[in-house]
Amino acid sequence: MITSRNQLAETICALATPAGVGAIGVLRISGKDAITIVNSIFVGSNLNKADSHTLHLGKIMDGKDIVDEVLASVFVEPRSYTGENTIELSCHGSPYIQQRMLEVLVKNGARMAQPGEFTLRAFLNKKLDLSQAEAVADLIASNSEMSHKTAMNQMRGGFSKEIMVLKEKLVNFASLIELELDFSEEDVEFASRPELKTLVQNIYALISSLVQTFKMGNAIKNGVPTVIAGKPNAGKSTLLNTLVNEERAIVSAIAGTTRDTIEEAFVIDGIVFRLIDTAGIREHTSDVIESIGIEKTHEKLKQASIVLYLFDAIETSFEEMTKELEFLKDSGAVVIPIANKIDLGDPKAIQKKFEAREDIIFISSKEQTSIAQLKKRLKEAIEKDQVSNDVIITNVRHYQSLMLAGESLQSVLQSMEMQQTGELLAFDIRKSIYHLGEIVGDITTDDLLTNIFSKFCIGK
Amino acid sequence: MITSRNQLAETICALATPAGVGAIGVLRISGKDAITIVNSIFVGSNLNKADSHTLHLGKIMDGKDIVDEVLASVFVEPRSYTGENTIELSCHGSPYIQQRMLEVLVKNGARMAQPGEFTLRAFLNKKLDLSQAEAVADLIASNSEMSHKTAMNQMRGGFSKEIMVLKEKLVNFASLIELELDFSEEDVEFASRPELKTLVQNIYALISSLVQTFKMGNAIKNGVPTVIAGKPNAGKSTLLNTLVNEERAIVSAIAGTTRDTIEEAFVIDGIVFRLIDTAGIREHTSDVIESIGIEKTHEKLKQASIVLYLFDAIETSFEEMTKELEFLKDSGAVVIPIANKIDLGDPKAIQKKFEAREDIIFISSKEQTSIAQLKKRLKEAIEKDQVSNDVIITNVRHYQSLMLAGESLQSVLQSMEMQQTGELLAFDIRKSIYHLGEIVGDITTDDLLTNIFSKFCIGK
Repeated sequence: MITSRNQLAETICALATPAGVGAIGVLRISGKDAITIVNSIFVGSNLNKADSHTLHLGKIMDGKDIVDEVLASVFVEPRSYTGENTIELSCHGSPYIQQRMLEVLVKNGARMAQPGEFTLRAFLNKKLDLSQAEAVADLIASNSEMSHKTAMNQMRGGFSKEIMVLKEKLVNFASLIELELDFSEEDVEFASRPELKTLVQNIYALISSLVQTFKMGNAIKNGVPTVIAGKPNAGKSTLLNTLVNEERAIVSAIAGTTRDTIEEAFVIDGIVFRLIDTAGIREHTSDVIESIGIEKTHEKLKQASIVLYLFDAIETSFEEMTKELEFLKDSGAVVIPIANKIDLGDPKAIQKKFEAREDIIFISSKEQTSIAQLKKRLKEAIEKDQVSNDVIITNVRHYQSLMLAGESLQSVLQSMEMQQTGELLAFDIRKSIYHLGEIVGDITTDDLLTNIFSKFCIGK
Repeated sequence: MITSRNQLAETICALATPAGVGAIGVLRISGKDAITIVNSIFVGSNLNKADSHTLHLGKIMDGKDIVDEVLASVFVEPRSYTGENTIELSCHGSPYIQQRMLEVLVKNGARMAQPGEFTLRAFLNKKLDLSQAEAVADLIASNSEMSHKTAMNQMRGGFSKEIMVLKEKLVNFASLIELELDFSEEDVEFASRPELKTLVQNIYALISSLVQTFKMGNAIKNGVPTVIAGKPNAGKSTLLNTLVNEERAIVSAIAGTTRDTIEEAFVIDGIVFRLIDTAGIREHTSDVIESIGIEKTHEKLKQASIVLYLFDAIETSFEEMTKELEFLKDSGAVVIPIANKIDLGDPKAIQKKFEAREDIIFISSKEQTSIAQLKKRLKEAIEKDQVSNDVIITNVRHYQSLMLAGESLQSVLQSMEMQQTGELLAFDIRKSIYHLGEIVGDITTDDLLTNIFSKFCIGK
């Protein structure tokens, strides 16, 4: 990882747009000498004298050869993404030309950037904090409305702000305790213990609620793992097709954009539901979660956040359904009971049979009856789990730091209960502060930065 | 195809960078309302009041939702690629975000651009002529130094200028003849027939030389089709590996850029040589061009511009070589005779055996002897075919127009010889002018434009 002063003084360059043939490609050059290096191979206006945030048409030369006609965007430090002098060169979208441009840049004093190095520099120049930098990568990877919203919010500092508020409260707390230590011989108590206890409990509650958003936050980021369970003839295959096929149509609705197709997934109001363990359903084999009641089924159900429990409204008795729901409930997932095939019987009679259980959705997968209602329920199941729309933890590193901060706060509460010394209290509080600082990057190590930024793409 | 006034008055938008995940993506919006449309969804500075060629950081909004933080490049007409008001939005490189941005743009009055529509508008607004517009597509598709150079030269107008000069000469010629027609009753001759004949002959010679560059121009664009021919044990497989493997190393030398690997090809000073019919060589089967002397071999050889004729310097007699060379010569390709395995005998004796033929290269494919000399000869074979480095015809449409212009000029010469009337002469000259005009786009039809621009990518 590049964090040494020498390496950071170097000017870096990379292709910032996806590799391949397109109308245009953009190269990004950042560093102290970015503008002078580009200017030395640029025929057009004098970029050294250009104002920040201006565009200049010109030619990139390799000696006497024209490499390409380009548009150069000039950003003068600190008014750039990295906080350094930056040039973006918009060239023709030919991989050959882009490679030649990089060659010429390297020949004239730039070096190839490492993955994430532009954003690392932005972080080191305090243009964004660590959780915001991580959100940049999440934003690029976002593929649904919810994952996009969460990443955008985090990048704009919403998440960091929440963390900073928590941290400030803890710092105040720690200061008071440490002040007491200075006066320990006088046995003063600057911080009222009951008030402190309330404060720590409140912070702990807040952290817990953040931690609780992680499972769903992660689901939003990667898609909500969803299982369709039910007996062989419950109609799982038809329901699967109904849910998945509609989405496919939406995905390809915008002409001219290509997207990776998400296999076996569907989107409701921007939330991706990723159907797991559907291979068996597709192939009509028995290797699906239909063997409800068998222990190994639990293994599969554990991966799910939501279980769509489908049963035949005609063939299934209320007792049978109750028993199966009981079994599925143990998985820890949200279970949505769905009575299928209501088109084959008298709706009123069916509803009467199951009226003792209020949360059943009555559908006909074949006739497409009440599918909208099912989708609404799916969406509600997710939203119920969210503490607020604004702060959702999606990053495993943040989750771990919050967990550790929570544990430290628990220790604080225990210490208080056991009337431990101020030193021990202060130690646990400082530990919590440390873990919260890790999230926004107040506290970093080379290993941590390497781990975060090496996952970025080159050019970001 | 979109050439109606109504459709051209619309503001178009498209993703201009390759589809996929990257650090950034660029959307291009062009048309009368490009700036006002973007400004209506942009939170930042007022783009309507922005100077041309300035950059503005801001947010693209969909109602209250932030779609992305973007950099907007403002180009005020006519100072843009299309000649219209243009905005380029540099956003995060997430396909989801790019799709959302296009949705918002379309919702606010833009429409999705058709393939090549930006360049079509540039052509219609006289920012570039038709052959330059075509060169843009060639430039994007260029994958070697020579193809890049040829396309760049054509885009910069070098090729069009040559055509325009030719055309001007013809127009002068035609005017004089037509002037004679106005005075036909008086039997005047404004244009001296011998002078005109010389002029037409000169122009015809120039057109012929341009036409002649096409085979090589096309080879440069698509790779020079090259065949390795020779008896089973001549060492074709080793030579193939020597030529191809070095190139592979060069291709992957620049870290951080991905390129499509060119199978069975090698590059000498920027010229791509594409080895055809090598499957047999690779698999050591007899289905290769080793059956020299057999008629069906000619079929395969016809595709080649260059034949590397490899023979065993020890086993082959001078007479045998001469006979095989004679057969290969009929293919019309440039044949390079290569005596292989000189490491297995006395070099002097070998050279003496073949001294009656001067163009043989003596190599040892196994010992890598004289491979550099072979490469030099390959390069010379290409360069000899080029009339000049500046004007090379690579486009089949230009080639056809030049051929037709040439035919018309031939008719002119014939008419003169047969002392035909001025009307017929003028008709043939106008025909030549027409075909030359087609190249630069003085004369266009909707079909022609459709044919050219529909091959462009969207966003260009």
